[in-house]
Amino acid sequence: MAVIITILALGLHPPEGTTWVAVRDDPLVLPGLAIYVLSFSFVAIYWNNHHHLLRATTLISGAVMWANMVLLFCLSLIPVATEWLRSGYHDPAPAAFFGVVGLASALAYSLLVRAIIRANGRDSLVGTAIHADLKGKLSLAMYAAGIALAFVSVWLAYALYAAVAIMWLVPDRRFMHAHADEGTNEP
Amino acid sequence: MAVIITILALGLHPPEGTTWVAVRDDPLVLPGLAIYVLSFSFVAIYWNNHHHLLRATTLISGAVMWANMVLLFCLSLIPVATEWLRSGYHDPAPAAFFGVVGLASALAYSLLVRAIIRANGRDSLVGTAIHADLKGKLSLAMYAAGIALAFVSVWLAYALYAAVAIMWLVPDRRFMHAHADEGTNEP
Amino acid sequence: MAVIITILALGLHPPEGTTWVAVRDDPLVLPGLAIYVLSFSFVAIYWNNHHHLLRATTLISGAVMWANMVLLFCLSLIPVATEWLRSGYHDPAPAAFFGVVGLASALAYSLLVRAIIRANGRDSLVGTAIHADLKGKLSLAMYAAGIALAFVSVWLAYALYAAVAIMWLVPDRRFMHAHADEGTNEP
Amino acid sequence: MAVIITILALGLHPPEGTTWVAVRDDPLVLPGLAIYVLSFSFVAIYWNNHHHLLRATTLISGAVMWANMVLLFCLSLIPVATEWLRSGYHDPAPAAFFGVVGLASALAYSLLVRAIIRANGRDSLVGTAIHADLKGKLSLAMYAAGIALAFVSVWLAYALYAAVAIMWLVPDRRFMHAHADEGTNEP
Repeated sequence: MAVIITILALGLHPPEGTTWVAVRDDPLVLPGLAIYVLSFSFVAIYWNNHHHLLRATTLISGAVMWANMVLLFCLSLIPVATEWLRSGYHDPAPAAFFGVVGLASALAYSLLVRAIIRANGRDSLVGTAIHADLKGKLSLAMYAAGIALAFVSVWLAYALYAAVAIMWLVPDRRFMHAHADEGTNEP
Repeated sequence: MAVIITILALGLHPPEGTTWVAVRDDPLVLPGLAIYVLSFSFVAIYWNNHHHLLRATTLISGAVMWANMVLLFCLSLIPVATEWLRSGYHDPAPAAFFGVVGLASALAYSLLVRAIIRANGRDSLVGTAIHADLKGKLSLAMYAAGIALAFVSVWLAYALYAAVAIMWLVPDRRFMHAHADEGTNEP
Repeated sequence: MAVIITILALGLHPPEGTTWVAVRDDPLVLPGLAIYVLSFSFVAIYWNNHHHLLRATTLISGAVMWANMVLLFCLSLIPVATEWLRSGYHDPAPAAFFGVVGLASALAYSLLVRAIIRANGRDSLVGTAIHADLKGKLSLAMYAAGIALAFVSVWLAYALYAAVAIMWLVPDRRFMHAHADEGTNEP
Repeated sequence: MAVIITILALGLHPPEGTTWVAVRDDPLVLPGLAIYVLSFSFVAIYWNNHHHLLRATTLISGAVMWANMVLLFCLSLIPVATEWLRSGYHDPAPAAFFGVVGLASALAYSLLVRAIIRANGRDSLVGTAIHADLKGKLSLAMYAAGIALAFVSVWLAYALYAAVAIMWLVPDRRFMHAHADEGTNEP
């Protein structure tokens, strides 16, 4: 995931001139920063949740490895979706594509959670922590709605994407944990 | 290997325009994505297998370190092979070169497996897990055939490369393992 | 943080020509190197301190995760601030912006320290190691002064930024530690 | 160090055309690959040795952290030295500069070894493993000679740099070790 943040940050460029007037008149500085904040939050949220999910996992099956690879693949499309968004954030196509990548990532994450529960049992740590996964299902619905609404107004789509991010930024109490139990690795 | 995926993902670029028509008319969007999927799978497969191989290894000899470095070097050529392929996927030279990098990587991986078995003994975990390495030998043959066939039809070459990837995507049961035994690291 | 150093180093470019005269006449070689040294030190200092801070932490709360994410976000703006500085280091706007990113990072770091102390108690390792955090408060004041002075003379701003870096390069004795206690990870 | 290899590999570009004739006629393909092999070996050697050195280290002092940072800084200049070399490998300036970076890295590495021995004592693992460090001193002399000879013939310089790499590629028996002792991390 550090990889994806690298590529996102590479997409940030300083304004053309070196005066405040140049910054004010560069129409891409503020939207570019806003899009970066959205994508950064998106990847950071997956980073945190993925980290906690795998810590709580005991058995890794073939299906888990597969689902994990699909998730990483979906997330690796975030930078190109971000770059496209930056090149034309008023147009429905990039706005909808960002939602498609978000929806695909959310689907891959649910697949990963299911594969882990299937491998570790309903009574495992992950199985008991995630009962109905309302938050996950709501995210899927919000991304799907965002994709559709991008063709009505891109701002409705962005509002929905941002709402998903804010919903997940509240840390997931389902995997609350003591750092001491995690051995010698950093959080 | 995260390094290699970074460079691969950097090679992805959004289409020129921001409408669906621009996407449809950009002749590089779909092949570019297909080539990215192929290269991503290629690196992800090595990542998984390399990870499991080293987990099962007890003694690291000088030859093991050497073979590991040669493997990483071969894999580090994947992004440039991918970029060349993207710039002309109809031509035999880039199609064959992709196979050459694949063949070299597969050879380096076999060298690594042999060096590990030599250092740890035939009765070690790796020694008993990999008896004849049919899958490895078949991959070598398929890459070699792909390189030759690239000069007949590039599509035959791509079909063979994809077949190798699909063959390995089936997770290797030889290193099936419980995550709990692996200490505190993530999978 | 490795991510941020990658992007910084990507910003370094060789001089146009390949003779010593070309190097002497390229007005960007020496300032570019000086700016790189400043940014590299900046990120390396956070890397070291962040590493030691988290090692000394037992309980990770939601607020700690939040503060950590904000810190990483601020640090991820260093490369773009560096790139802007390189494009016009005589102008106050990039000089002040570099200070703004520095100030934001320092603020996020204090937030992280506070969140850790709140989660782990005043008597915890971090709580007893960082009493008044004079060094942290002084850094905030120096960055703030640097931002203001950038509009008087950019060189005063640079002197203050460099002073903060030098102040922190003296390793923080508050987290002095034996490598052996840290388990199997590298420092 | 993965960072540095990323940037090195980013410098590799496919030839302009997609036929074998284009490859043969592109004067930068073969030298570019040779320079990449040299730089890759250079970084890989430091990666291996640095890894083993730190594994054998118990106490980390402030001076060790300082020396480590200086080493990482020197190594982070390798990609820009490589890029300059690629842009004009017939000229003495880039050839000498590559040697300067090599010399600086080797000096920083010796500083790191000394700081570790000072912190851990002459009887520590590192202290007894590295007695006179002949190999280290010989490398310094060879880099210095290479820098001087670059102004006579760049090929003499390259021969010396390659000789240093080959000398170190023979794995360092001073830190021969069993992987099992290293805990759960990968080599």
